[in-house]
Amino acid sequence: MCEGVGDDCALLDCGERLLAITTDLLLEGRHFLPGVDPVSLGHKALAVNLSDLAAAGATPRAFQLALALPRADEGWLQAFCRGMYALADAHGCVLAGGDTTRVPQSAGERSAPLDGPLTICITALGDLPRQAARKRSGARLGDDLWVSGTLGDARAALACRNDELGPVPAHHAEAFVAKLDWPQPRVELGVALRGIASAAIDVSDGLLGDLGHILKRSRVGAVVEWEGVPRSPALRSVSTEQQQRCALAGGDDYELLFTAAADRRAEVEAAAAATGVAVARIGSIVEAGDGLRVRDECGVELARHWRAFDHFAD
Amino acid sequence: MCEGVGDDCALLDCGERLLAITTDLLLEGRHFLPGVDPVSLGHKALAVNLSDLAAAGATPRAFQLALALPRADEGWLQAFCRGMYALADAHGCVLAGGDTTRVPQSAGERSAPLDGPLTICITALGDLPRQAARKRSGARLGDDLWVSGTLGDARAALACRNDELGPVPAHHAEAFVAKLDWPQPRVELGVALRGIASAAIDVSDGLLGDLGHILKRSRVGAVVEWEGVPRSPALRSVSTEQQQRCALAGGDDYELLFTAAADRRAEVEAAAAATGVAVARIGSIVEAGDGLRVRDECGVELARHWRAFDHFAD
Repeated sequence: MCEGVGDDCALLDCGERLLAITTDLLLEGRHFLPGVDPVSLGHKALAVNLSDLAAAGATPRAFQLALALPRADEGWLQAFCRGMYALADAHGCVLAGGDTTRVPQSAGERSAPLDGPLTICITALGDLPRQAARKRSGARLGDDLWVSGTLGDARAALACRNDELGPVPAHHAEAFVAKLDWPQPRVELGVALRGIASAAIDVSDGLLGDLGHILKRSRVGAVVEWEGVPRSPALRSVSTEQQQRCALAGGDDYELLFTAAADRRAEVEAAAAATGVAVARIGSIVEAGDGLRVRDECGVELARHWRAFDHFAD
Repeated sequence: MCEGVGDDCALLDCGERLLAITTDLLLEGRHFLPGVDPVSLGHKALAVNLSDLAAAGATPRAFQLALALPRADEGWLQAFCRGMYALADAHGCVLAGGDTTRVPQSAGERSAPLDGPLTICITALGDLPRQAARKRSGARLGDDLWVSGTLGDARAALACRNDELGPVPAHHAEAFVAKLDWPQPRVELGVALRGIASAAIDVSDGLLGDLGHILKRSRVGAVVEWEGVPRSPALRSVSTEQQQRCALAGGDDYELLFTAAADRRAEVEAAAAATGVAVARIGSIVEAGDGLRVRDECGVELARHWRAFDHFAD
């Protein structure tokens, strides 16, 4: 499908299908820590893009990698590529060129470089049948609200590192870090939900923040039942307030958040079972005027500051 | 043609045509100076990508912009977008989403940011008829070697700034800077050369470096006639050695370097005339064993160091 790699442009033949395209820019010190394992970084840099394709219901086809390396380190680069290619191969997604910049060793040809951070920009391309296009604007009144996997673990890994959670058993801390460093893009589930989910987004900025994007684009409101929000055993071991903070407002989960009409429940569950991904029904779509509310098991609304959460990087 | 902008992915319908895709990553202090005019920066950031599409003979359709802004500066961003959109509109190329990161103002949610440079990553998409695919590997023995516009001015702007050229009249210095800051991607010429040019590349790293890419991929050699290399009146006013350095080894020209069979000369000239871009025949393709040579008007080979030029950023 992909020719011309190494030319000015890669050439893709997408036949009669729609092309889905997404770009993510990751900066050292902002999106990942300077000392992070390069294998997991390679995995995650591609995973966050495949997660966007999953939300669109697209089958990954190709990606372009642009990399700015402040240090020439072959060992680091090989490890990074190993993590990236393992995930790419698992999804049949080929590298279609890109752009690599090293800081010039001599200042002779260009002006002296700033000592900038390692920078990774990946553009991923996938395709889907024209009639399967799924957008954030598709949520309808009465739709169920669903999420895959569990939420909050990636944020808990950061909270753990910052010593915000109190004492955490080692196996729980490891579970948190695994979710932060090795997110699994829900590509197969995203494809299986073609024609079933009415809207979808991947949870990169936090459940409420990302749900807010669907609500705004679809011009609807939502009620989230806190008890239904799926949490790992590790997350359930911390305080309720921290659970809510991590699962409702924490980012980096890369699970799929999606809506589907209430009469499609059996189909949603079949798609989840067929792709081996757990899904949980966490609420429903209501009228726009009702906004976004989160209720506890007694039907009492949670404190305002979770509702008002806004993506910190916006 | 483009839907879903603002979703996780933009969706493109490219029908029965081939899709061309290219990504360029630009870093403050490495690819542009910190104080550069944001309008020209917006223009150039997109221009370098459209130039890649031009080399492939693709018609620009859409682009994605990923931007990391170390400072929140609305005025700067508006000026940057003005420069970018003016060029995009001129070529009918639409913004199809992207990713903008600001340095978080509070260190509360993530680890403290490094003070990184302004970073711009643009992915541009174009399309072309399947039978018009043109690659760097297409140059054939006996082909003419052509280049559009003039070469060396952008590099002369840097040389001027670094005081390497000696005294330069103000109007010449301005001509150099105009070429550096406002490169004109040869999109229409690239399209007009479909089916005529056998191979093409845009001159971003310097004539000899970029020609080397064609020779390597096509497994051929080349002879370049120095006298035929097109130079502006401004460049012709500096020393011959500086002219050679700038025009043969200097980057950032964004002209098209292409090959075409000798019996297609009239068609090349007609394509150039139809698109209002000057082209010059600067040499020819020879056997691989002859390597890459540059000869002066007496047929004497130029000094070795121009032949051995290698892209500093490789």
